[in-house]
Amino acid sequence: MLSLLDLRRRIDSGELSASDAIRQSLQAIGERDGALKAFASVDRSAVAGHGLLAGVALGVKDIIDTADLPTEMGCKAIYGSWRPRADAAIVSLAKMAGATVVGKTETTAFAFLDPAPTLNPHRADRTPGGSSSGSAAAVAAGLVPLAIGTQTGGSVIRPASFCGVAAIKPSFRLLPTVGLKTSAWTLDTLGLMAASVADCAYALEAISGREMRLPDDPGAPRFALARQRFAGDAAPEGEAALEKAARLAEKAGATVVEIDLPRPFADAWAIHGTVQNYEIRVSMAWEYLNRRADLPPRIGGLLDEAQSIRASDYDAVRGAARRARLAAKDFFAEHGVDAILTYSAPGAAPDRSTTGDPRFNKLLTLLGAPCVNVPGLVSGDSLPVGVQVVAPFGRDAQALRAAAWLERIVRA
Amino acid sequence: MLSLLDLRRRIDSGELSASDAIRQSLQAIGERDGALKAFASVDRSAVAGHGLLAGVALGVKDIIDTADLPTEMGCKAIYGSWRPRADAAIVSLAKMAGATVVGKTETTAFAFLDPAPTLNPHRADRTPGGSSSGSAAAVAAGLVPLAIGTQTGGSVIRPASFCGVAAIKPSFRLLPTVGLKTSAWTLDTLGLMAASVADCAYALEAISGREMRLPDDPGAPRFALARQRFAGDAAPEGEAALEKAARLAEKAGATVVEIDLPRPFADAWAIHGTVQNYEIRVSMAWEYLNRRADLPPRIGGLLDEAQSIRASDYDAVRGAARRARLAAKDFFAEHGVDAILTYSAPGAAPDRSTTGDPRFNKLLTLLGAPCVNVPGLVSGDSLPVGVQVVAPFGRDAQALRAAAWLERIVRA
Repeated sequence: MLSLLDLRRRIDSGELSASDAIRQSLQAIGERDGALKAFASVDRSAVAGHGLLAGVALGVKDIIDTADLPTEMGCKAIYGSWRPRADAAIVSLAKMAGATVVGKTETTAFAFLDPAPTLNPHRADRTPGGSSSGSAAAVAAGLVPLAIGTQTGGSVIRPASFCGVAAIKPSFRLLPTVGLKTSAWTLDTLGLMAASVADCAYALEAISGREMRLPDDPGAPRFALARQRFAGDAAPEGEAALEKAARLAEKAGATVVEIDLPRPFADAWAIHGTVQNYEIRVSMAWEYLNRRADLPPRIGGLLDEAQSIRASDYDAVRGAARRARLAAKDFFAEHGVDAILTYSAPGAAPDRSTTGDPRFNKLLTLLGAPCVNVPGLVSGDSLPVGVQVVAPFGRDAQALRAAAWLERIVRA
Repeated sequence: MLSLLDLRRRIDSGELSASDAIRQSLQAIGERDGALKAFASVDRSAVAGHGLLAGVALGVKDIIDTADLPTEMGCKAIYGSWRPRADAAIVSLAKMAGATVVGKTETTAFAFLDPAPTLNPHRADRTPGGSSSGSAAAVAAGLVPLAIGTQTGGSVIRPASFCGVAAIKPSFRLLPTVGLKTSAWTLDTLGLMAASVADCAYALEAISGREMRLPDDPGAPRFALARQRFAGDAAPEGEAALEKAARLAEKAGATVVEIDLPRPFADAWAIHGTVQNYEIRVSMAWEYLNRRADLPPRIGGLLDEAQSIRASDYDAVRGAARRARLAAKDFFAEHGVDAILTYSAPGAAPDRSTTGDPRFNKLLTLLGAPCVNVPGLVSGDSLPVGVQVVAPFGRDAQALRAAAWLERIVRA
């Protein structure tokens, strides 16, 4: 993988020019993306910018508007060659920080569950995960040092786990969603993927304008080990990764307390689907009414089913989300923990008939809490399996700190 | 004005066909909009739909995406002839309810303060208000029975007051903003304008899928008369309208208690600008970076100034908005009132060099509370002056009930 911080150090020292860094990424894409299929479109004339992210080649998920490249939403039948007038806010912010958009990354259609064409760089018969499939694969394959994804259920943390890259899904609306194709407006969250947690922190600071950089010695965190049992069991390799991370963390001086998440969290987990599906039905009303036949099977089927969800069903369940957000505030203080440690995904990447299961991500998206995928662990057959570090809403720097500490331990 | 409920009664009784109702609106637009300039574009081939809003000709503010008509954002220099791929969610919902989009209504550029070309139907030298200028004027002039606007500061309630139409700015996100050109994502709220409060209630129920219809006898409400003194004084005709409404309400059996809004409301009012301007700066980053010279003076100047607002400034003031939302919950219960009665605007419509002042609307937009403009009162020189009825967040039906009761009293 391309370390963003290492790249920046080499550019700052004059060893590498920002332009050469961009050219290297474009060349790598040209040579290797034909097989990987991480990119939906590439800007071969992209040039380097100026600022904290100068020389950083950026992949942008293809449900995010770009004025200079097509935005096809993973569904050429409806959005083939579609070219928005303006860049999404996140694209402008990244460019203002100096990043260079080298291409749009493949997404599942409308960021739902129909697989994208992208392969998992670790094994071609496995999914890279979804819906930010191309973003995770592009970083994992070393094509770019930074990519933008989005998560409504588990679409940043899950592909990051399957591809073995670091990722942060920040607090809800820390990154602006203006110019993103909306799935569910109370859930859709932009996220960043990079080679390491420290890379994510540097990029999040540069793009969001908030202080995120890590202290040299972050200090051992206090973790609540939470299995989210209401979401079902993890696969053996997911369980093994979580146990190994907890054991290594404890050995290195962290406090790790096993705590079951209390009732309001289970209730909120259970209603994520109603919130998501009702909002998707409203957001995609035009596509459903006018282009049903052009929708791939999973998003089409979801919309068929979602037509029967009434506004009153949706209104009735939203209290559970509110109560869980309040409970989350108390949870961290009450137990004196810095972060929750939980599964990023049930296990390693499954085969390509699916994009994997977001069941350990849905609650955390609904809470709006900052979540970090910590890479570095592998399954028995050498596939990446991440673990997830979660801090309270608004404490993104705290999530990154705990995750960076853990990453150092599990990679050691 | 065209009464939506009357139109629907005539269609239901067979006296008028839905198609003829649409044709009448198109004909009225053709004959009279050349002078009024309420419409930015018109679909002369529009046909009637089926459902609760069959036969209802709808004007849609031109910052709301439509697949079949241009969406020019009030700024042809940047968005001239721009045609989105999809309809905004609100447009799809209105069509599903049977409404017919007969045209896009004029908006100030990017829903900010540069005047639109539209005239006030009551006097050509006055502003119709902004930013939903065309929507208010089109309803006031009897061209359409229903129009959609948006409010970030005071852009639904203020033009409704200046043009003498009823309007509801519902609770935040009751109407989905997917496909709306974003100004400020924590403030932007869609609203409906029509000839009467009962028309607004009928349309809001049909579009939102929530129960909003009014009881035959709503019963006299308990009002808190709140002048929002932190926002400065109203003009004499605004003050006279509020006093008259309060006096008539009391005479007709309502309880009217004068209450100063406590400190958290003043604090929230004071930070609306920071929240709004920072978010506009982020939302319009592409336009600012790429098309600064094409922006009209007020939005251009705002963006110049807003570049100096830092993320930390924005983060620092958001607590005041949260505290005011909590205070609003308590306020209604503590004082035992159904609704706040306050100014819709400082006074009657000023001249066309401005779109008027949103200072009595900003707090209420930030609170996300449902606000209704009650028309029917006039200034000494016969210009409309509305008053505003505000209920707690999520109690849209309660706001409409109190407003409908008051409308009946002031029109009597």
